[in-house]
Amino acid sequence: MISPLLTDLYQLTMAYGYWALNMHERESVFHLIFRNQPFQSNYSVACGLGTVIDFIQQWHIPAEDLQYLQGLSAPDGSPLFSIAFLDYLAALRLTIDLDAILEGTVVFPQEPLVQVRGPLLQCQLLESTLLNSINFQTLIATKAARVCQAAGGDAVIEFGLRRAQGPDGALSASRAAFIGGCTATSNVLAGKNYGIPVSGTHAHSWVTAFSDELAAFSAYADVMPHQCVLLVDTYDTLQGVKNAITVGQQLKKKGGVLRAIRLDSGDMAALSIAARDLLDAAGFYETQIIASNSLDETIIQQLKEKGAKISIWGVGTQLVTAYDHPALDGVYKLSALRDEENNWVYKLKLSEEQVKISNPGIHQVRRYWRNKQPVMDVMYDLEMDIVSKPDVVSVDQPHLEMQLPVFDEFTDLLQPIFRQGQLVHPVESMQAMQERAKRQVHPFINQPESAGYPVGLESHLYQLKKELMANVG
Amino acid sequence: MISPLLTDLYQLTMAYGYWALNMHERESVFHLIFRNQPFQSNYSVACGLGTVIDFIQQWHIPAEDLQYLQGLSAPDGSPLFSIAFLDYLAALRLTIDLDAILEGTVVFPQEPLVQVRGPLLQCQLLESTLLNSINFQTLIATKAARVCQAAGGDAVIEFGLRRAQGPDGALSASRAAFIGGCTATSNVLAGKNYGIPVSGTHAHSWVTAFSDELAAFSAYADVMPHQCVLLVDTYDTLQGVKNAITVGQQLKKKGGVLRAIRLDSGDMAALSIAARDLLDAAGFYETQIIASNSLDETIIQQLKEKGAKISIWGVGTQLVTAYDHPALDGVYKLSALRDEENNWVYKLKLSEEQVKISNPGIHQVRRYWRNKQPVMDVMYDLEMDIVSKPDVVSVDQPHLEMQLPVFDEFTDLLQPIFRQGQLVHPVESMQAMQERAKRQVHPFINQPESAGYPVGLESHLYQLKKELMANVG
Repeated sequence: MISPLLTDLYQLTMAYGYWALNMHERESVFHLIFRNQPFQSNYSVACGLGTVIDFIQQWHIPAEDLQYLQGLSAPDGSPLFSIAFLDYLAALRLTIDLDAILEGTVVFPQEPLVQVRGPLLQCQLLESTLLNSINFQTLIATKAARVCQAAGGDAVIEFGLRRAQGPDGALSASRAAFIGGCTATSNVLAGKNYGIPVSGTHAHSWVTAFSDELAAFSAYADVMPHQCVLLVDTYDTLQGVKNAITVGQQLKKKGGVLRAIRLDSGDMAALSIAARDLLDAAGFYETQIIASNSLDETIIQQLKEKGAKISIWGVGTQLVTAYDHPALDGVYKLSALRDEENNWVYKLKLSEEQVKISNPGIHQVRRYWRNKQPVMDVMYDLEMDIVSKPDVVSVDQPHLEMQLPVFDEFTDLLQPIFRQGQLVHPVESMQAMQERAKRQVHPFINQPESAGYPVGLESHLYQLKKELMANVG
Repeated sequence: MISPLLTDLYQLTMAYGYWALNMHERESVFHLIFRNQPFQSNYSVACGLGTVIDFIQQWHIPAEDLQYLQGLSAPDGSPLFSIAFLDYLAALRLTIDLDAILEGTVVFPQEPLVQVRGPLLQCQLLESTLLNSINFQTLIATKAARVCQAAGGDAVIEFGLRRAQGPDGALSASRAAFIGGCTATSNVLAGKNYGIPVSGTHAHSWVTAFSDELAAFSAYADVMPHQCVLLVDTYDTLQGVKNAITVGQQLKKKGGVLRAIRLDSGDMAALSIAARDLLDAAGFYETQIIASNSLDETIIQQLKEKGAKISIWGVGTQLVTAYDHPALDGVYKLSALRDEENNWVYKLKLSEEQVKISNPGIHQVRRYWRNKQPVMDVMYDLEMDIVSKPDVVSVDQPHLEMQLPVFDEFTDLLQPIFRQGQLVHPVESMQAMQERAKRQVHPFINQPESAGYPVGLESHLYQLKKELMANVG
């Protein structure tokens, strides 16, 4: 359970300000978007909504937290928050509406992954936690999809716990990695909490705990005859394979099976080919070869190109920390706010950088399909009438008018998740989300990375943005 | 509280194996070391022990977790663990001894940050969680020390929550960043849990929620007269500074004070100089300038070189994800195990890579000092007699005999933390750990990064390692 205090202090000082100015109940709309694809990927995989749902369902500031807030003071010693405001927070229950793109969906920069609508104070208080969950899990689901893509049809097991960024850097990563396509995790708690299959056998310490490697393997086979996977590189890898074969032969006689060997160092391509030869020559055709050791999508692809005989990939640190791009740049921006007369006023933030100018309005994201393949995404404003074939302006090149491609259907990606603080969307299974990701990532595999999928703003929304840009400040 | 199931499955399968073979009570010693300095740093700052202490004190596998383990099965459907083993786990309480280098201490590769001694099964079960906590927090404390070093004496505020790697990727990072030298955090939960000062004012959304910037600033000053920090770059930064000054003048009349302005985009050097001029010209000499926007130690140093007039640095994503080196490569290796006759057998793991060959034995790390400056670290074996001036062999170049430099005192870094599962070390305050880090990092500042601090193995220990390397396998 995530505490509502897992937030930036400025969310609370702003909340206090809105409350003190009696603006706290004004209806507002916020968008959670990211600005750039990580890993120079041509897609990302939306993830983290399940964690957000749990957080919102349990959101409530308990007395002990309010007491902590009561103790905070400005540099001159005056209390930061008034008692009346803290009483307001104590009684507060969320009544927001929340729409989101479902986990496992392929997404692109500038698209709202989450749109929150409701009282200004409530929407503001959710910002930091929503960003934390969606940024990280979307990052890891995307990385996992890329790793699985490189692995082709092979199983990919996530085992990043030991070098993950804290307990939850591991736990959330295991969840996201599964949604992105991983088969299993080594993380037992992730297995319990999320129902992900768990996997694991023994470490080097098992081998060094015995007088020699053969004794260690033999002992392991005795106690784990049905789950016998042997790590062969503690001393000398190919001698390790031979020892594993010796033990596999003993195991066979007792009705057990040598399921796999694991390589964890050295030249994985050459070693796996040599190991495969040794295994096959001894009749162990069914024994799989698992590889681990700082693997990522690039190394997996290189190993495949070198003909490596590896059928299961154990991926850890590089996956769970998204080592080559360890943060997604998601932001949460106010896009509309009702004025005192209850009229919508659309909002944006300016910037010298085009990509940092936010999109005003209350959005829906429409995806157009042809032959079951996505062909274009268009953001439009819910308060405007749009026709089924809108005129579109590119989000990447804001003056480029785009032609809507030939399509045979469309779907609206933002789904109602909460209405008036109540969950209205069925909870999805992890398997369903993983299946969605697999299906949706498929068309993007082997597309040249530069080939940008077209994402646009419906032309009326674009006009409105342009006008606002000229007038705000 | 960290669940004992936050572990890799193979720790449990090995534990089961040791138990089934009646090896589980054999006394063992494990070292937690890291192999390479992150960020090409010439030091790291040990961190994470506090989290480990909490974890060990609370370690106990509850019934619901055992039930989950009972449901796990091998691919052929046979249960992974026997009921008798799970009953053993249910009754298990930790009786280990644990020694550690205190948080905030400057440390180097190959030195045991933690040494665990006790029943083989217990030591093995702790591996993944210890690595997770120590790896991540040592990484972030080191990054924070480097950022604070670049900032000179200026305050550094950590605000990485929104792009951190999950809830705890933020929370643990706030803790480690404070120990590494940060002044405050934006993370309210970290403030509550760890007693770290919290800091924060308002976001762009506050500004866009009003009809114009001046109205937004004025409203903020009304509700936060004692804590007024204004973010000036929502539309146009220098106009924002002028608006802040206008509001600062109103505030002065009412007895408030414009504490600071914050810059969050654009050319920070030029903008801060121009903002400083505007503030000074209006008599706001005391108003500070805070900078944020993808800052790290390199950018802070560059801004300082350009004469930026920034006195508070807000550092987020780059710090809490250790963006340029997002994982520390810590490992946990068996170094000694008693045999059936209760004699110690020293252990190591071989590797083609020198850095991956583990050190056998039961260690202490002795630091030699001269004029209050550390001059050399030497690892020695507790079971061997060593004199106060041992012969030493470099760990970096394993054949290089080193001269012990002139010294006037020495300290042994590994401190007793747990004995027989009971905490025997007083809990340190966050401030004490931060002070230690500041004091210890100081001699390493402005040393050329290539100048390696000498770390060695006492020569008898080195001989023993060489003999073991020749004989194992």
